[in-house]
Amino acid sequence: MRIGELSRRTDVSVASIKYYLREGLLAPGELTSPNQAHYDEAHVRRLRLIRALVDVGGLSIAGARDVLAAVDDDQVSLYDALGRAQAAVMARTEPVDDDATERAGKAVAEMVERRGWITSEKNPGWRAAVDVLAALDRLGGERVAGLLDVYAEAMEGVAGHEVEAVVDRDERERSVERVVTGIVLGGALITALRGMAEQSASARRYGAGAAPDAGAV
Amino acid sequence: MRIGELSRRTDVSVASIKYYLREGLLAPGELTSPNQAHYDEAHVRRLRLIRALVDVGGLSIAGARDVLAAVDDDQVSLYDALGRAQAAVMARTEPVDDDATERAGKAVAEMVERRGWITSEKNPGWRAAVDVLAALDRLGGERVAGLLDVYAEAMEGVAGHEVEAVVDRDERERSVERVVTGIVLGGALITALRGMAEQSASARRYGAGAAPDAGAV
Repeated sequence: MRIGELSRRTDVSVASIKYYLREGLLAPGELTSPNQAHYDEAHVRRLRLIRALVDVGGLSIAGARDVLAAVDDDQVSLYDALGRAQAAVMARTEPVDDDATERAGKAVAEMVERRGWITSEKNPGWRAAVDVLAALDRLGGERVAGLLDVYAEAMEGVAGHEVEAVVDRDERERSVERVVTGIVLGGALITALRGMAEQSASARRYGAGAAPDAGAV
Repeated sequence: MRIGELSRRTDVSVASIKYYLREGLLAPGELTSPNQAHYDEAHVRRLRLIRALVDVGGLSIAGARDVLAAVDDDQVSLYDALGRAQAAVMARTEPVDDDATERAGKAVAEMVERRGWITSEKNPGWRAAVDVLAALDRLGGERVAGLLDVYAEAMEGVAGHEVEAVVDRDERERSVERVVTGIVLGGALITALRGMAEQSASARRYGAGAAPDAGAV
């Protein structure tokens, strides 16, 4: 099919398709003449995946490029794919070398020890957790920092199910894509449900009229 | 202080400070001569907040502008602030009108009913959850979609504590800032801990050598 039909089939504008081609997220079509390319079902599927990762999952173009490179690499292990997808959903920050970072690093290490997690400082989440706790420390957000174990327990309850759902060593085909899709969209689902659960909790605490979309305290 | 000292104090480059001024995230300094402005401690604090929201929390500039407008508005309620912070951490998507969206909408409504959540379709999370489930449906990610109640239960375990930690009606000062900071950075903390918990779960299931940062399956 030509680019116009690809656009209609996927509900992605021709301009966006050209952007994804330029950014290397989408493979070029087969040239049928010097200025006309032919696209196939693989392009339709890839565009759906790009849209899911970027629009619904909230990945940056650089993050999407990185996880899509894993999808396209026959040699990548499922665990590398898991690590790359995790890194893509986290904000990247410049390390700040101050007392707040030192205290935060200690808090994360102690939490990992306390909970017996099998992880290390090389995990992208470790650094990200330190950055968040340090930022909260600098801003006086100690009440939220105090929820570290509440959050950790919630993620323990989720992670085992997620790994079981996305990693299937008996079925190699599409498995890296499943890992990437599951980690990125699972994260977006957590964020969405958190918003609803917070509204529900605040309505329970302060009355339904006080819920976020209803306005005043 | 002048812009150079503001930069040194906050570890934010002069170019970034000028960008935040142009984008309206940071209030202009007081002009002491036609091309020289004076900044104070409020600017130091605001820059720390901007950096926390954008770099650590992963907000877009538009998202940061929206939540900072709430921080600056004396009239905004804590619940409006909560809703705005929730909306800022979620990806914004164009609605797609297809069978997948219809099925996803039904699944979210049934989950809310089943769990007795006090929320509505106006909550930004509702729409976002529908979008994620629809995207998973289109991509064959039904295993992750099947975790809907696992995720929902985890967020129930978190939301009550979060609302209690960030909403304090007895203390108005800085309270909108606390809501915004807590919701945005709490979300980043969840993402970070999820990455570590997933590594730990995969190490438990497949052996520590199979953990994400260690490479091959």
